[in-house]
Amino acid sequence: MKPVKHIKIKNEMKVNELVSSFGSCGFNSRKLSEAVNILEKAIKEKCKIFFGLAGAMVPGGMKQVVIDAIKQGYIDVLVITGANLTHDIIEAIGFKHYIGNEKVNDTMLHKKGLDRIYNVFMKSKSYLRLENFFTKHFDVLSKANNPREFLWKLGQILSKGGRKKARGRESILSTCYKYNVPIFCPALTDSGIGLMIWSQTIRKKKINLDFFADIAEIIEIAWQTKKTAVFYVGGGVPKNFIQQTMQFTRPASYGIQITTDRQEPGGSSGASLKEGISWGKLHEKAKFVDVYCDATIALPLICASLKDRLKNRKIKRKK
Amino acid sequence: MKPVKHIKIKNEMKVNELVSSFGSCGFNSRKLSEAVNILEKAIKEKCKIFFGLAGAMVPGGMKQVVIDAIKQGYIDVLVITGANLTHDIIEAIGFKHYIGNEKVNDTMLHKKGLDRIYNVFMKSKSYLRLENFFTKHFDVLSKANNPREFLWKLGQILSKGGRKKARGRESILSTCYKYNVPIFCPALTDSGIGLMIWSQTIRKKKINLDFFADIAEIIEIAWQTKKTAVFYVGGGVPKNFIQQTMQFTRPASYGIQITTDRQEPGGSSGASLKEGISWGKLHEKAKFVDVYCDATIALPLICASLKDRLKNRKIKRKK
Amino acid sequence: MKPVKHIKIKNEMKVNELVSSFGSCGFNSRKLSEAVNILEKAIKEKCKIFFGLAGAMVPGGMKQVVIDAIKQGYIDVLVITGANLTHDIIEAIGFKHYIGNEKVNDTMLHKKGLDRIYNVFMKSKSYLRLENFFTKHFDVLSKANNPREFLWKLGQILSKGGRKKARGRESILSTCYKYNVPIFCPALTDSGIGLMIWSQTIRKKKINLDFFADIAEIIEIAWQTKKTAVFYVGGGVPKNFIQQTMQFTRPASYGIQITTDRQEPGGSSGASLKEGISWGKLHEKAKFVDVYCDATIALPLICASLKDRLKNRKIKRKK
Amino acid sequence: MKPVKHIKIKNEMKVNELVSSFGSCGFNSRKLSEAVNILEKAIKEKCKIFFGLAGAMVPGGMKQVVIDAIKQGYIDVLVITGANLTHDIIEAIGFKHYIGNEKVNDTMLHKKGLDRIYNVFMKSKSYLRLENFFTKHFDVLSKANNPREFLWKLGQILSKGGRKKARGRESILSTCYKYNVPIFCPALTDSGIGLMIWSQTIRKKKINLDFFADIAEIIEIAWQTKKTAVFYVGGGVPKNFIQQTMQFTRPASYGIQITTDRQEPGGSSGASLKEGISWGKLHEKAKFVDVYCDATIALPLICASLKDRLKNRKIKRKK
Repeated sequence: MKPVKHIKIKNEMKVNELVSSFGSCGFNSRKLSEAVNILEKAIKEKCKIFFGLAGAMVPGGMKQVVIDAIKQGYIDVLVITGANLTHDIIEAIGFKHYIGNEKVNDTMLHKKGLDRIYNVFMKSKSYLRLENFFTKHFDVLSKANNPREFLWKLGQILSKGGRKKARGRESILSTCYKYNVPIFCPALTDSGIGLMIWSQTIRKKKINLDFFADIAEIIEIAWQTKKTAVFYVGGGVPKNFIQQTMQFTRPASYGIQITTDRQEPGGSSGASLKEGISWGKLHEKAKFVDVYCDATIALPLICASLKDRLKNRKIKRKK
Repeated sequence: MKPVKHIKIKNEMKVNELVSSFGSCGFNSRKLSEAVNILEKAIKEKCKIFFGLAGAMVPGGMKQVVIDAIKQGYIDVLVITGANLTHDIIEAIGFKHYIGNEKVNDTMLHKKGLDRIYNVFMKSKSYLRLENFFTKHFDVLSKANNPREFLWKLGQILSKGGRKKARGRESILSTCYKYNVPIFCPALTDSGIGLMIWSQTIRKKKINLDFFADIAEIIEIAWQTKKTAVFYVGGGVPKNFIQQTMQFTRPASYGIQITTDRQEPGGSSGASLKEGISWGKLHEKAKFVDVYCDATIALPLICASLKDRLKNRKIKRKK
Repeated sequence: MKPVKHIKIKNEMKVNELVSSFGSCGFNSRKLSEAVNILEKAIKEKCKIFFGLAGAMVPGGMKQVVIDAIKQGYIDVLVITGANLTHDIIEAIGFKHYIGNEKVNDTMLHKKGLDRIYNVFMKSKSYLRLENFFTKHFDVLSKANNPREFLWKLGQILSKGGRKKARGRESILSTCYKYNVPIFCPALTDSGIGLMIWSQTIRKKKINLDFFADIAEIIEIAWQTKKTAVFYVGGGVPKNFIQQTMQFTRPASYGIQITTDRQEPGGSSGASLKEGISWGKLHEKAKFVDVYCDATIALPLICASLKDRLKNRKIKRKK
Repeated sequence: MKPVKHIKIKNEMKVNELVSSFGSCGFNSRKLSEAVNILEKAIKEKCKIFFGLAGAMVPGGMKQVVIDAIKQGYIDVLVITGANLTHDIIEAIGFKHYIGNEKVNDTMLHKKGLDRIYNVFMKSKSYLRLENFFTKHFDVLSKANNPREFLWKLGQILSKGGRKKARGRESILSTCYKYNVPIFCPALTDSGIGLMIWSQTIRKKKINLDFFADIAEIIEIAWQTKKTAVFYVGGGVPKNFIQQTMQFTRPASYGIQITTDRQEPGGSSGASLKEGISWGKLHEKAKFVDVYCDATIALPLICASLKDRLKNRKIKRKK
């Protein structure tokens, strides 16, 4: 047995030093440290990493962390909620999210045209420009065969434009396009994007996306992979869609999840990774850890720590 | 100000008596009591009730409660996860869920062919018969235009058969069919049903479901309604899909949610109903309550209490 | 393996029927049902039941449930927070708690002299009368040797008075006195009672309570018992004080805890009962269950169910 | 309104850089950043900081962080659980805590003499040496008038010995002694220390601690202070004891709490700081924040960030 080593805060301590020292402590700090160890190992072994992103991570300020994770090669397949993509586009076309306050009166916010996401605000008129954007590009977008291709076309559109523009408004969608990372969004209709497509169809525009082709594509990717890692932020559809892919191909060799949901009420979001072993979603000998922490704290810690550990690694850019 | 009245347990106390007495207590017991009051009011005012059902409620033993809620007229529109529907069909075709144990070894379960959902087990071979079922009925099912219609056809198929069979294996799907309650499942591909459809397509069978038509249909239903109530069990896509429908039609007049998720990490599942006022999802003058409780406890309490309160009401059967 | 039986809500369903049917479901509903089974067994086997009560259960409307649990013989030793006792006395001397609202402005409440306990209010002037009460009875109270005896004297004082008064203002303290149930409050100084005693001492009144004698007394009770059950509502000092008593005498044979705390952050309140086996606090063969639920919901359900199951039992009144 | 700025992970990023950038994000990351801002302000304004430490922070590897916080002058008054002090002494007399695993069999651990604290282990024989320690020093310790003085004497004893020993086994108790920080432990009897004292008394040794004198002392400290800050890690008795001190002296000007408990079930541990305004525990104009995060993650982040921000500050050593 190894003893607990008490954390010693140093001057100008680096994130990776602190996260590494978490590994000799207890409770969730150790779990967070193990998450970095597991990811480091999975990346070095060139596992294909399936990343599930739920929650309001874009409004929460985590967009660049995800973008950089894609660029660094920590993410090979992205499964995401429509909400995160909607907020990603809203920022890409020039709108912002704002530092808000959860204690404010919601009726007053409504009158001011501000939508609240806990302690973050967004102008509700963002939706108008979103509609214009989709009207403008719908002819191109509607040629997509399936949601994955639709999102790829969206990424292509968003990655165009002058350098300056691109730099300022880098998006998850455009980065996935540039780095050839497939994005899946099974519940696309459950989002602002879904609503924008619907609003085109009531103007008699046509689109015909084959949602089941997305299942075929992600299963094909998993089949062609020898070793996979799953990395879940926040549960929901992204987690479950990856889990079922593992179940129907082969169980993952590495697993990480960051959540604040509980396992006892039985929902998929809060289910422990260990439970996945019974289903064949996770390999019996897999290395895995559940980190119970707000992802806006845990995800940057994990990515900052990983960045330092992998700084001498040559990234095989998939561009 | 009204004083707190301490609960007095009576002999052979009825659920409705206890839940009603919760109304003069504190904390979540009072919230649960308010949920019943709100639903009672919404039902008496003939609001259209949009019910969002996430979580593993079918494996958790809540199927009949949902079925009876449909029959009693507490649910007018059902938005549900693919997982709940998959488990609903699995039971309808003769399989069961089992009393399990969360402390058991998952590797051992995997070897025995048992899938674990916290403290509930399922035989993994259920999936085989599920596949046979879809193979048998795919020609009929594949004629559906959109997921809502696909689920309606599923309900139709499941409601056939002798009386005895139907009684023993009543399902959410067949009940919705019989009582003309539309079911929406935006993330249908994220489920066993989705996988079964995919497995038909790899055998060159065709299906072409228009997912965006479901948005059009639920928005149309909401538009045609003067007063709506939202009732969420467990967040996820079902909640968000209803929420966006309210946002793009008119805000709900009544709202209830049962969840154990937290609001602080910013996700939609844990978001307080109050937050919806800023978005125009919930009316500024709406009556609403968030109940923080495992739904396998809260939902039966609410439904048992409602049943007693509404026992003299003539149910306008929509069959 | 036994199958999950879906709950069927009946007309005028009784609490015990519903709770019993929880036993064939999943997640926390089954745990709650198991809690009743365990308590029923412990009571029938005449185990000594050590009940730990934390949280704001008196403001939350649970006072009578606790009082009746004492009368019914479900509680043999009570370990409690000073806060619950303070609120118990405040009600016994004529003050009330009020139905409040957690969304209200706290500055406004402060100006109105209302103290908030989530969605319950209390008049802050209650403390003044509390002080008068202690001034009046301090001579008697200060003769106590240890906190347990001090609380016994308090119960004696509160149990006096006319019948009418007693009926209306029944308290946990007076009931424990009448039914000879010892009360321990290890953190007595961390409460309004503690402050009231301090305020007497600054008037030069003397009191000398031997806090360590309480350890001796509870350990003596446990030593003299063959079989014990532990029943925790809400963790905190009450749970831990009972746990250490078990550890230093003999491990409990039955265990129940109701909490919403999590185990992962490592604190005693959220620790699973199972963890206690490693310490020798719980017997290796003990029957036990952790129920994750707001106690204002779970405790009345458990007590109402127990009452029906044990209605033909002759209570050996310990008066 | 200020826009959300997405976190950009830099090479070799320092903890303070990351935590500062949390301030422009959403959800709990921003709250954590605000906690550092509030503490920085409170320290610079020379507020008296009352620090409440619950949970299993010593087994969890946080001992040195607390020790350094005392040395750096972030803590002026410490209110703590007996459990944390017991584990502090156990380490000071040469025992350790060990990296454990929450999934291990507790019966097996019990047989091996290992006590489990979630994912940390301790040898149960630590208690034997603890008893020897108390037997050896009881004559000195028993001369204490009140628990605060008892703990001061404990700190004095533990701070003795050769330099090397002291360095290796630095404790919270000895550091408080050296830096003249008073420690209060209202629930001292609810701990291993309490049990050790009890075990001396059964050998006819005498001790007479005046627990109410501790109330007098902490109230006196608060009275003599113009501006106070409260800093809670984990709720419980430490938080409540400080809260009542504020209520009966003057409300705190700054407040921080780190917890994973919920507010809805009404307990003091999970109560929002805002609620304290109604009671007069927190000033109406106070700056305060609740951080919902495992303290083994949040506390080191806060302390590392603070250390950098205050590195040029001259610490007025209170030795």
